[in-house]
Amino acid sequence: MSKSILDSKQSREIQELAEISNHTKRATVLEMEDILYKPFPVLDHGFIRVIDYMGDDAAVVQAARVSYGKGTKKVNEDRGLINYLMRHRHSTPFEMCEVKLHIKLPMFVARQWVRHRTANINEYSARYSILDREFYIPAPQHLASQSNTNHQGREGVIEGDYANKILQILKDDASNAYDHYEYLLNESGEDSRPGLARELARMNLPVNFYTQWYWKIDLHNFMHFLSLRADPHAQYEIKAYADILLEEVLKRWMPITYEAFKNYKVDGVHLSSKAMEVIKKMTKGEKVEMEQSGLGKREWQELIDLLQ
Amino acid sequence: MSKSILDSKQSREIQELAEISNHTKRATVLEMEDILYKPFPVLDHGFIRVIDYMGDDAAVVQAARVSYGKGTKKVNEDRGLINYLMRHRHSTPFEMCEVKLHIKLPMFVARQWVRHRTANINEYSARYSILDREFYIPAPQHLASQSNTNHQGREGVIEGDYANKILQILKDDASNAYDHYEYLLNESGEDSRPGLARELARMNLPVNFYTQWYWKIDLHNFMHFLSLRADPHAQYEIKAYADILLEEVLKRWMPITYEAFKNYKVDGVHLSSKAMEVIKKMTKGEKVEMEQSGLGKREWQELIDLLQ
Amino acid sequence: MSKSILDSKQSREIQELAEISNHTKRATVLEMEDILYKPFPVLDHGFIRVIDYMGDDAAVVQAARVSYGKGTKKVNEDRGLINYLMRHRHSTPFEMCEVKLHIKLPMFVARQWVRHRTANINEYSARYSILDREFYIPAPQHLASQSNTNHQGREGVIEGDYANKILQILKDDASNAYDHYEYLLNESGEDSRPGLARELARMNLPVNFYTQWYWKIDLHNFMHFLSLRADPHAQYEIKAYADILLEEVLKRWMPITYEAFKNYKVDGVHLSSKAMEVIKKMTKGEKVEMEQSGLGKREWQELIDLLQ
Amino acid sequence: MSKSILDSKQSREIQELAEISNHTKRATVLEMEDILYKPFPVLDHGFIRVIDYMGDDAAVVQAARVSYGKGTKKVNEDRGLINYLMRHRHSTPFEMCEVKLHIKLPMFVARQWVRHRTANINEYSARYSILDREFYIPAPQHLASQSNTNHQGREGVIEGDYANKILQILKDDASNAYDHYEYLLNESGEDSRPGLARELARMNLPVNFYTQWYWKIDLHNFMHFLSLRADPHAQYEIKAYADILLEEVLKRWMPITYEAFKNYKVDGVHLSSKAMEVIKKMTKGEKVEMEQSGLGKREWQELIDLLQ
Repeated sequence: MSKSILDSKQSREIQELAEISNHTKRATVLEMEDILYKPFPVLDHGFIRVIDYMGDDAAVVQAARVSYGKGTKKVNEDRGLINYLMRHRHSTPFEMCEVKLHIKLPMFVARQWVRHRTANINEYSARYSILDREFYIPAPQHLASQSNTNHQGREGVIEGDYANKILQILKDDASNAYDHYEYLLNESGEDSRPGLARELARMNLPVNFYTQWYWKIDLHNFMHFLSLRADPHAQYEIKAYADILLEEVLKRWMPITYEAFKNYKVDGVHLSSKAMEVIKKMTKGEKVEMEQSGLGKREWQELIDLLQ
Repeated sequence: MSKSILDSKQSREIQELAEISNHTKRATVLEMEDILYKPFPVLDHGFIRVIDYMGDDAAVVQAARVSYGKGTKKVNEDRGLINYLMRHRHSTPFEMCEVKLHIKLPMFVARQWVRHRTANINEYSARYSILDREFYIPAPQHLASQSNTNHQGREGVIEGDYANKILQILKDDASNAYDHYEYLLNESGEDSRPGLARELARMNLPVNFYTQWYWKIDLHNFMHFLSLRADPHAQYEIKAYADILLEEVLKRWMPITYEAFKNYKVDGVHLSSKAMEVIKKMTKGEKVEMEQSGLGKREWQELIDLLQ
Repeated sequence: MSKSILDSKQSREIQELAEISNHTKRATVLEMEDILYKPFPVLDHGFIRVIDYMGDDAAVVQAARVSYGKGTKKVNEDRGLINYLMRHRHSTPFEMCEVKLHIKLPMFVARQWVRHRTANINEYSARYSILDREFYIPAPQHLASQSNTNHQGREGVIEGDYANKILQILKDDASNAYDHYEYLLNESGEDSRPGLARELARMNLPVNFYTQWYWKIDLHNFMHFLSLRADPHAQYEIKAYADILLEEVLKRWMPITYEAFKNYKVDGVHLSSKAMEVIKKMTKGEKVEMEQSGLGKREWQELIDLLQ
Repeated sequence: MSKSILDSKQSREIQELAEISNHTKRATVLEMEDILYKPFPVLDHGFIRVIDYMGDDAAVVQAARVSYGKGTKKVNEDRGLINYLMRHRHSTPFEMCEVKLHIKLPMFVARQWVRHRTANINEYSARYSILDREFYIPAPQHLASQSNTNHQGREGVIEGDYANKILQILKDDASNAYDHYEYLLNESGEDSRPGLARELARMNLPVNFYTQWYWKIDLHNFMHFLSLRADPHAQYEIKAYADILLEEVLKRWMPITYEAFKNYKVDGVHLSSKAMEVIKKMTKGEKVEMEQSGLGKREWQELIDLLQ
């Protein structure tokens, strides 16, 4: 764990929790117990910690069956049912599981994140408390230039002196903003001048500063979040979080559901009626050109890429 | 546990779950472990079973603080903060806890219940499966007559021969409906006639038949449900469920939150600006009559009742 | 309009509303104005009435652009953007439109309907009011037998004497239940016996009785509802409502969005990663058998059907 | 309208919309038509514009009654019913009305605002587009110092040279951040260096920069938002918006509902069971001291303040 993520008091508190051993009759996932409370680092100062979870793969089956006991007893039947539920968009059994996370993330990432409204959030309050001197500076390989073709996209990496200059600007402005934030708060009572109200002083901080929150969400909405934010079109900085949630959290928590989710959603594709017509012809050996396909240029290109 | 609630296979399945003992680092509530999976009987054939839970009183504090460890360590501080959150309607920390229940209930109760949309539900499907011969017949002391003054209320209990006649009608009609349901389904393949589709046959069953579902909800919305359905204005049959959820489930799960909830919400009162004006005068020793109060007749009466 | 749907007082009230002519600066859709307040009949006693709507195709564009004026001015650009939003699951601009409907439907349909929680509902209260003698009896061509292969499906139509017998049972039981409902309520005060509380008496009515409600939903969730309930796997009785909402309401209200919705969602298909691998091979002229496809029997069959 | 809020193109677009006159049969509110599309200025560069609305006071009644026509015909009956619904927390009829707004607001206000999840939002995208050089600087009378007693509160106003210095810091930092934002974007293609991706460049902007969005919400949740954000405990900057929504929008849109909302919610009070016990004694002429009241110090003080 890099030094920058936790101070010693925080590490000790986490350590204490990680040493707890309670007895429970509840569904328990050993792989999740292993990672409970421990931070996965993300970006330069961020992290993801699993705080609690409810349910396992069997709980999805149990809810789908409205059963008195565990649902089915055989892993194979569970897998079959979970695949079926995923393929036919029966989402309610997946809503019966829940995960709670502690996440530290830059404010501009947090602003994208909260658009997913079907989750519970408690955010660290900058009205009430004081933010730390922690801000996000992209690693050199992520300092991307603006795409010329896609308004919302990145192109190549910026390198050399120009890259250094950009990074220096970002660092200097964030540092300067934080220096002034501290001046405005005047926590030390210097010169016996009153501090500016915390809820006002924070307005000087740029959105690359880190915030943190508790985030709790059910499995169905968790997967919906991941399907959008672990997608290649998502901004790199939020995708960095989604990738860890997918590959480190979901995979441990729900191995069967994870597999079905990858196959049907993450790596699955959605085709329009018109695109499907094109494919039907192609599988019958007909040659199809864009002009007769009824597809727009962009959708046509997306289809051709899919079939490579 | 009355015989009518569980058959022997169900009892065995529940028994198996109740004997599980896993180790966990998660927040665990001993009082909840004691009742896990076991049915609390409600009405004549219904029940409530706790299937899973997430969080405890300390988890509310932990989320409110966005803390690395447990939140505060002292019960007194926890109580103070929880009272404060409840009084000032800071609902998000309460959303950080979750409970999952298996509930068996008459369909007319289920129809009121689902109006609370902020919960997850998996209901037993009568399209797919066959309902049991189980229907609700009120106990004699709950066979209430229609109120003459309140369209939506009950008055005295109906007794004697007339009561018996009513109960007989309800029983006969339900029995007869179920006999026909079985005839329509023709599961035994009698006379080699095809059974009517399950999704159609069920239409013959009255709404006092029992259904069942898994119901999962966060603590904040759970309390909102209870504040409306454990209220004296709620219909007796849904209140019977809400009372058990309040006094048997919430009280065990979250003793501090339960106390605050009772004080501020269940037994607390909401007063209009005009009613508050009346009270101000009264506490100063002024005499106030309805005519000058600005209150309507009904609100005035509610206020007088409150002050008895 | 069939006699059974509205009485003369209701017709008059609707007529009065339909004669209103207000001036407004709001987005207005002529095709929707034409059908406002008027009932579309569904099943034997049900209906759908549009009561109000907010927004049009241009409002989707306007919201996506967060524009000061109308969004784009050209229909072509609007269509291109709406197609793009639909294809890439940008759902929030579609949430910016809203429709409000008055719907009369059998209770077993209502019970499926409310599973869609992201809508606002006001239902006619049988605690407070008295239900009419109106129940659903399937038309002969919809009296389907249970499928032997699909637990949740229908097979052929039941005909002849047996069909008549089934219909007679359904009618008699519903009639008998309503006679007893009236006896229990004793609204006429016959024999000066007290009526049973309305909230209790209703428990005797089967779920084919009609209820009614106001239902309000945003365009995104409306389409999600339609994609599940106008689907061939939905139960016929709810699909009858969804088909009218799709072809009579959505098509008039949002012609461009309707088209995109049909192409990408209603008639679009979702393929798993494994199914896509099969298609890739097929379009390259390779022959693929189920055994090497990695698909289960059911998914394989669904894929073959798609490619016919 | 102050110059800083709209440019001439925006004014022209709004003007065009405001000149529309459509015929409609929908419920229409003249007072709302008057203000449609026009900006109410808030803070130094923000605004609120009503874009669309659905329903009026009568529509609340109509939904509560599930009526074929308008609900009641008499204003008095409407008022009585609306008061009753408000007093007894029957929220669903209020959900049947909807309002859509275009709002421009500082990012730190936007971050508080989105915690209300039961609304639809389309925000101007800084991944896709470029933000304007517009940032919030408090008016001198709102430059408040931090409270010493309440972590989350303000105390007196900061004045004189020190105030000027603070304002200068805020202005300089925002200006400097925007200069660098423009440098990083390099929209003019200066020195033929590639621009930094928009989604990255924006990270340099402080949270007092303005963003804007379309926000759509139903009447019930709108009032819930107002009850929290027009409250004296809300931060001044978000209260400035809530006050206009309450006094300029809600009051025009829903005069009867507005009145009931003020009486029962905004100016109403919630008392705990223990506080109510104190009041009972006081209205009977008993003297009560804090020590025997069972109330904590803070709640006792709140109660005494209420009774002044």
